[in-house]
Amino acid sequence: MRLRFHRSLDDLKEKLLVMAGMAEQAIQRAVEAYRVRDLSICDLVDRGELAINRFEREIDQMALDLLAMEQPMAIDLRFVLAVIKINADLERVGDSARTISDRVRDLQKIASAEIPVDLPRMGSLATAMIRKSIQSFIEADADMAESVLSMDDNVDKLNSGAHQTLLALMKEKPELATQALHALMISRALERVADHATNIAEDVIFWVRGADVRHHVRETEATGTGR
Amino acid sequence: MRLRFHRSLDDLKEKLLVMAGMAEQAIQRAVEAYRVRDLSICDLVDRGELAINRFEREIDQMALDLLAMEQPMAIDLRFVLAVIKINADLERVGDSARTISDRVRDLQKIASAEIPVDLPRMGSLATAMIRKSIQSFIEADADMAESVLSMDDNVDKLNSGAHQTLLALMKEKPELATQALHALMISRALERVADHATNIAEDVIFWVRGADVRHHVRETEATGTGR
Repeated sequence: MRLRFHRSLDDLKEKLLVMAGMAEQAIQRAVEAYRVRDLSICDLVDRGELAINRFEREIDQMALDLLAMEQPMAIDLRFVLAVIKINADLERVGDSARTISDRVRDLQKIASAEIPVDLPRMGSLATAMIRKSIQSFIEADADMAESVLSMDDNVDKLNSGAHQTLLALMKEKPELATQALHALMISRALERVADHATNIAEDVIFWVRGADVRHHVRETEATGTGR
Repeated sequence: MRLRFHRSLDDLKEKLLVMAGMAEQAIQRAVEAYRVRDLSICDLVDRGELAINRFEREIDQMALDLLAMEQPMAIDLRFVLAVIKINADLERVGDSARTISDRVRDLQKIASAEIPVDLPRMGSLATAMIRKSIQSFIEADADMAESVLSMDDNVDKLNSGAHQTLLALMKEKPELATQALHALMISRALERVADHATNIAEDVIFWVRGADVRHHVRETEATGTGR
């Protein structure tokens, strides 16, 4: 029973890792589609989003089955709930990839323009945050999760820098307002990805630190049902 | 035991209702702050956001305690998990209110301009969606939840209409680009509120319809532990 239970927890963790990989790849592809203006990559992002949505439901169902059948306590319970919350954030990272892909399609329909904002750099930072937040979850490392929170400040700075640059561009060359606005929306979508990574990191901190406290209580109470 | 359990479920539901009310009010206030350009309302929104964040943690903790102590099964388990997911969405509605409030503060620093977009109408639609999605949850009414999904199309249309209008304004009067961009970001924040309502409605559908199926299985299995 306990053995099967821990195997289920491992399966759940593994599935969440795959989900995180899909979400990260979606952003990387969307930014690549922007960089090289390639609509075939947009197609991949759009198909990927559907797969991510299906995966979200599967993970939720697995978590629910696990709770229903195994009734985990304390730290394991907190772990499963963290999976459910992280899962929802990853699904929305997929939505952000889709937002970017839609903007790339719109950009493709109009004249191209030099946009003086390094969106690939923002994308690379934001995906690094997703990666690190998930790693902190896998390793139950609250300190690592905290480092994700400070990375978010950098993405926020890049985003507000992009905001200013693009606003100035709109005023100076109103004929490029459409291009500038699309770039601004992509910048904002990437900032949201970073926000999702921050949410994940916060859940990890709440899970690990909260779980530690509860785990300790359980041990002293010696109920023997905790992990 | 069962009586105490159902009382706990009711407490949780009641607390989520309060949370939903806070989130709805935050958006209404933020839009009002925009409409009448009143920074004292922005202060209320900002303080409210902190309260919403605290409330989110409290609800999560309540849900966790309930799962740990009562180990609900089937439909009740699904209910508690829906609360956890809805709770996260409501917290982000608070974030959107904060985004709007920040934009109103920025607008206050610059010359005012006539912005030809009906943001209060969008705000009123978006908050109606939140209200209805929560009502569908309280009444476990999947059909009502589905009506929220179709309301989302209206908000999307208003948002993309606002987008076009404001882009045209930026091109025609580049000196108003800053004002137009702030309005556009408020429109987008309201569209996100509608997205959160949609997420909530989807969770309700998944909960109610999934729960019905599971509840039925439970009854035929006659385990007697379902509600």
